[in-house]
Amino acid sequence: MKSVGIIVEYNPFHNGHAYHLQQAKKKTNADIVIAVMSGYFLQRGEPALASKWTRAEMALAGGADLVVELPYAFATQKAEVFANGAVSLLKALHTDAICFGSEEGDIDAFHELLSFHQANEELLDAEINQEMKKGLSYPKAASNAFQKIKHKGLLDLSLPNNILGFHYVKAIKEQQAPIEALTVRRTKSGYHDQTPASPTIASATSIRNEINSKRSIQTIQQFVPDSSLLLLKKEFDTFGKLISWEDLFPFLKYRLLTSTPGELQTIYEIEEGIENRFMQYIKEAESFKGFIQKVKTKRFTWTRLQRMCTHMLTNAKKEEMQKALTSKKATYIRLLAMSKKGQYYLSKKKKNIGLPIISKYSKQYSTLLRLDDVAASVYAMAYDQSKREKLIKSEYSTPPMKEAGI
Amino acid sequence: MKSVGIIVEYNPFHNGHAYHLQQAKKKTNADIVIAVMSGYFLQRGEPALASKWTRAEMALAGGADLVVELPYAFATQKAEVFANGAVSLLKALHTDAICFGSEEGDIDAFHELLSFHQANEELLDAEINQEMKKGLSYPKAASNAFQKIKHKGLLDLSLPNNILGFHYVKAIKEQQAPIEALTVRRTKSGYHDQTPASPTIASATSIRNEINSKRSIQTIQQFVPDSSLLLLKKEFDTFGKLISWEDLFPFLKYRLLTSTPGELQTIYEIEEGIENRFMQYIKEAESFKGFIQKVKTKRFTWTRLQRMCTHMLTNAKKEEMQKALTSKKATYIRLLAMSKKGQYYLSKKKKNIGLPIISKYSKQYSTLLRLDDVAASVYAMAYDQSKREKLIKSEYSTPPMKEAGI
Repeated sequence: MKSVGIIVEYNPFHNGHAYHLQQAKKKTNADIVIAVMSGYFLQRGEPALASKWTRAEMALAGGADLVVELPYAFATQKAEVFANGAVSLLKALHTDAICFGSEEGDIDAFHELLSFHQANEELLDAEINQEMKKGLSYPKAASNAFQKIKHKGLLDLSLPNNILGFHYVKAIKEQQAPIEALTVRRTKSGYHDQTPASPTIASATSIRNEINSKRSIQTIQQFVPDSSLLLLKKEFDTFGKLISWEDLFPFLKYRLLTSTPGELQTIYEIEEGIENRFMQYIKEAESFKGFIQKVKTKRFTWTRLQRMCTHMLTNAKKEEMQKALTSKKATYIRLLAMSKKGQYYLSKKKKNIGLPIISKYSKQYSTLLRLDDVAASVYAMAYDQSKREKLIKSEYSTPPMKEAGI
Repeated sequence: MKSVGIIVEYNPFHNGHAYHLQQAKKKTNADIVIAVMSGYFLQRGEPALASKWTRAEMALAGGADLVVELPYAFATQKAEVFANGAVSLLKALHTDAICFGSEEGDIDAFHELLSFHQANEELLDAEINQEMKKGLSYPKAASNAFQKIKHKGLLDLSLPNNILGFHYVKAIKEQQAPIEALTVRRTKSGYHDQTPASPTIASATSIRNEINSKRSIQTIQQFVPDSSLLLLKKEFDTFGKLISWEDLFPFLKYRLLTSTPGELQTIYEIEEGIENRFMQYIKEAESFKGFIQKVKTKRFTWTRLQRMCTHMLTNAKKEEMQKALTSKKATYIRLLAMSKKGQYYLSKKKKNIGLPIISKYSKQYSTLLRLDDVAASVYAMAYDQSKREKLIKSEYSTPPMKEAGI
């Protein structure tokens, strides 16, 4: 039974994702697709627009056989940490291949860059430090450093999916995982595109913008499978909205209003005195967007600030995050959804899966799992008071979503 | 110019308060009335139903000449600390007398008890400790201890206004304040009475219950002066509601969901493992009232738990509160409202007032004032997002409320 792993956020699951999933299966001739999906908070430091259960159900409907959660401590991180967590889960699940979307589309370019990187590591690090001293952000500094020392047309790391891909390939090598890496060229729409690029394909960002500006789910019909449309409508009907940072902004505001600079300094990724800028602008801020616009500087990118805000919101401490990330690997598998084939695959591999599959909260995994638990509770605060407890309760009472008939 | 001090919460200002204020003036033959009023959080660990500006305006309309704020660190405390803060402000303002309402109504009984208390301090403390070891709360234990050792009909300290009065008299003596103490017997309605006791007099508690149950301000017309009715209506029209714990419960919930037991242990008054009970019941709690009902035990009274919740809400740390309370005295005077006579009094006494009168935030007074600042910001979170910034901004931009014509 051959399996292919994909690493996703599905915020929400759209036609581009469906295409990638089918391509991954086809390219690897896999029987089952294992999706590692972020939980309530995403890589760019944002809350997901819908609960992880709804998004896992979309994935199942879209062709995934197993959906497992990427823990908070990995999901809200820069590419390297994010990739290590995801690859560790796929390795534990005995995935034969990983297939990722990239702007590049040619896997050799990733291997080449990895060799080049390993051969020139010290030189590169020195260059990146040089660039950062000029006040540039890390991604920009890394991109400049590469441009400066590369001798031939290496992979363009300034593109978000190329960076992720590079770190998947690097993590596979470092973890000595027997996983083949493959890539599919991403369809027309860029990761961050604000507006739809074709009649049926649009980025998740532009889909969310459509929903928010039109205040309707129906408006995205052409860009998502029917199953996604139905599930998003159900989510909307149950909770009265889809979630964005604005729904959680009151709690971030409250956190900042009641914290001292010293307390904020203990939060993961808070550094270089940025806590003072956060505190300076919070009192007058009427929206999350307006707040970040005020705090933003050349050095601190929007994504970096959003991630900091996510960690302040969940009270994720430097000490706790570092402890959770010591091994760079996940220590449990949280199963969110499975198809009949996925269930069969698990029953076959059960004995050899190196990590416990958990559905209940257990102090045993506390370093990593406590952060997931807090993240779920904090996310629930985005809903109206009457809906919160329902979501909080569901966190450890919801069994994995199953394909009809299991 | 003779002045009399009163110590109040005015939550809201009602006919009983108006009676007390006039009696205080009459009994002392005072020219001006100085009210020391709690800010946003009150002695029983509750948020005030309206902003301090609105409540100060009610006091002004009701006959007060100066309204000054009792800082958070004193206002949210048991009687002894509360009384010390209030007396220190009245001493700094050269108040000639303090007139408090009590169930007793005879000032000699307070002096007698104080003498008895001082003569039997060790014996009393030992008895109180004995009683508390049985699992009783402090007020109950103190009352039992007094009952046990007293030889004659001493003041009944189990009544809330008698306890407060006793501590006013004690604080005057300890601070060597040249202030005469007087008391007025409270009118029919008890402090905590849930339902109105006469056609025109009702406790603040029952007035709040009336407003909440009938969802109307008009319903309390008979129990409050016209000025209070108008001001409460204005507050209601501006903010869409009057504030109760339920409006702040989402933030308390968020605080508890994102805290570790270790963090909660650093909060003022959190002790004896009560943090574990708070954490145990918070996930499922749908209302503040329901939450406290679950957490409550014989040992932890409702008021004590509410105060703990207030301190968790404002993130008031043991360390900071103890620092703020070191001297047991206020270090500044925050003027909230003044009449023409009040303004004249201040201008006459100005040179001799021992504390700075402040209207802007200053780091100089940070230990005590930072807590007031945080309390005001946290209180503002009870309002809808569109109203919050308005209230936060008003905290240090509102000049003292003035009588028309100043």
